[in-house]
Amino acid sequence: MKLTILGCYAATPRTITNPTSQVLEIKNRMFLIDCGEGTQVQLRKNKIKFSKINHIFISHLHGDHFFGLIGTISTFALLGRTTDLHIYGPKGIKEIITLQLRLSNSWTTYELFFHELESKESEIIFEDQKVIVKTIPLKHRVYTNGFLFQEKPGDRKLNVDAVQNYNIDTCYYQKIKGGGNVTLEDGTIIENEKLSFDPIPPMSYAFCSDTGYHEAVIPLIENVDVLYHESTFLDSEESLAGKTLHCTAKEAATIALKANVKQLVLGHYSTRYGDITVFKEEAETIFPNVLLADDGRSFEF
Amino acid sequence: MKLTILGCYAATPRTITNPTSQVLEIKNRMFLIDCGEGTQVQLRKNKIKFSKINHIFISHLHGDHFFGLIGTISTFALLGRTTDLHIYGPKGIKEIITLQLRLSNSWTTYELFFHELESKESEIIFEDQKVIVKTIPLKHRVYTNGFLFQEKPGDRKLNVDAVQNYNIDTCYYQKIKGGGNVTLEDGTIIENEKLSFDPIPPMSYAFCSDTGYHEAVIPLIENVDVLYHESTFLDSEESLAGKTLHCTAKEAATIALKANVKQLVLGHYSTRYGDITVFKEEAETIFPNVLLADDGRSFEF
Repeated sequence: MKLTILGCYAATPRTITNPTSQVLEIKNRMFLIDCGEGTQVQLRKNKIKFSKINHIFISHLHGDHFFGLIGTISTFALLGRTTDLHIYGPKGIKEIITLQLRLSNSWTTYELFFHELESKESEIIFEDQKVIVKTIPLKHRVYTNGFLFQEKPGDRKLNVDAVQNYNIDTCYYQKIKGGGNVTLEDGTIIENEKLSFDPIPPMSYAFCSDTGYHEAVIPLIENVDVLYHESTFLDSEESLAGKTLHCTAKEAATIALKANVKQLVLGHYSTRYGDITVFKEEAETIFPNVLLADDGRSFEF
Repeated sequence: MKLTILGCYAATPRTITNPTSQVLEIKNRMFLIDCGEGTQVQLRKNKIKFSKINHIFISHLHGDHFFGLIGTISTFALLGRTTDLHIYGPKGIKEIITLQLRLSNSWTTYELFFHELESKESEIIFEDQKVIVKTIPLKHRVYTNGFLFQEKPGDRKLNVDAVQNYNIDTCYYQKIKGGGNVTLEDGTIIENEKLSFDPIPPMSYAFCSDTGYHEAVIPLIENVDVLYHESTFLDSEESLAGKTLHCTAKEAATIALKANVKQLVLGHYSTRYGDITVFKEEAETIFPNVLLADDGRSFEF
């Protein structure tokens, strides 16, 4: 699982920082999460092929999370894309995009599917053979969702020595990988556990931005491998965080601790702080495994 | 008169080039012309103060000319702007912007005035004491206007020696600057020409992008000091230029020649050409005074 941060600063794009956007590569699928202004250029800078992105998830309709979407959609069309593109985001996103396409008389060369979200409960919004994506309702000034990306458990691994010892025909292998027992010709049943090993544990990634301190997310993100949680402010600006429905680094770490996640990644920094290492220092007083997102930084998990 | 090019490449923003946007400083007014994605960052890079921009002119609703507008408007608000902002652009632009402000529940901290354009004839869209702005209807795939910025003729310059020789009271000076004659106490009329010099000739700037070859603009831009004219293609791609309603460098130069402009500035280059000097070389076979726009380049006229 690989996470590439295209932008992770709050509010306005600047010469050296970009608003929120990131790419999650999981089970060979590439998901674009949020799409602030300049995302298409950040994709180019980070050498991420446009053609690999088929699903874009938008957390909420504040500009620093979606003003780059129309440009990205248009550029995909200008480059002659033909593959379907799916957009998941708050109700209204379809109108914003289609109005601009209509007024510019520039329709896409590919099918564009909108999956508009309105539910205040977590729901499954994407599922295929290997990955499932659920919303994580957040607490912000407009309707906002985080997203939980979960690998599905893979096949069990064949115990090659065991199947040879039992002289099991190869036609049973798929059944064994799927967890099934095997009945030999003499009627003996061989339990699956004797013929296979547990699969590689599935990975999970939770993206939570933007949100005030919100313990309701904890049961939804419990035990995830990686939690990206916004930390717009430091504890010294706690009341500002509360007022604007953002979190401090300390609050993000508290959520990570209570949800028993393995790794916390911080981001969505206010640009008032010169050096982002202060966010890590503050979070580590609560939770040990903290990484700092930064534009252009990649993490492999 | 100073022209700063924020972006002058066609179609999509890239790592090293930006879509159309430029700032014209004329008579101490700053006009932002077009606003492709990334314009606000280009303004920062070029150290142009956001607070100095009170009027934004949008030629047409293709993305490479306006996708940066909503971000610019939002950033102005996030920075607490209070001064009115005027947007001039094709009908529909108000709906695009206000829809996004409404859905993000992010209203501006300042008054936002939309001046929507629909006329196919040239019209005056801005006028104050010193500057007048008119549309230049262009020929493109969607409704498009260029813009003509004209300084108004300034006051005549007082001939200090002459007014002293005639012993004229200072209370007449403003009348003389305005072109008036002076009647002395003995009834003698002194003609204005004897008391003043011609004012500095007013400057003019015409912005013509995007457009196919369109001789109808010639009477509107005749004798301008500076013409920015799109040259998306070279003559070798003439038929593609015709089909997409863009111009070649040769065609831009032909318009400059026929309109008897003093200076031609080329821009809106297709990114298919590695080196933009080829545009200048081609245009100079037709018209001698050619400058090449490039991102971050400034011209003083």
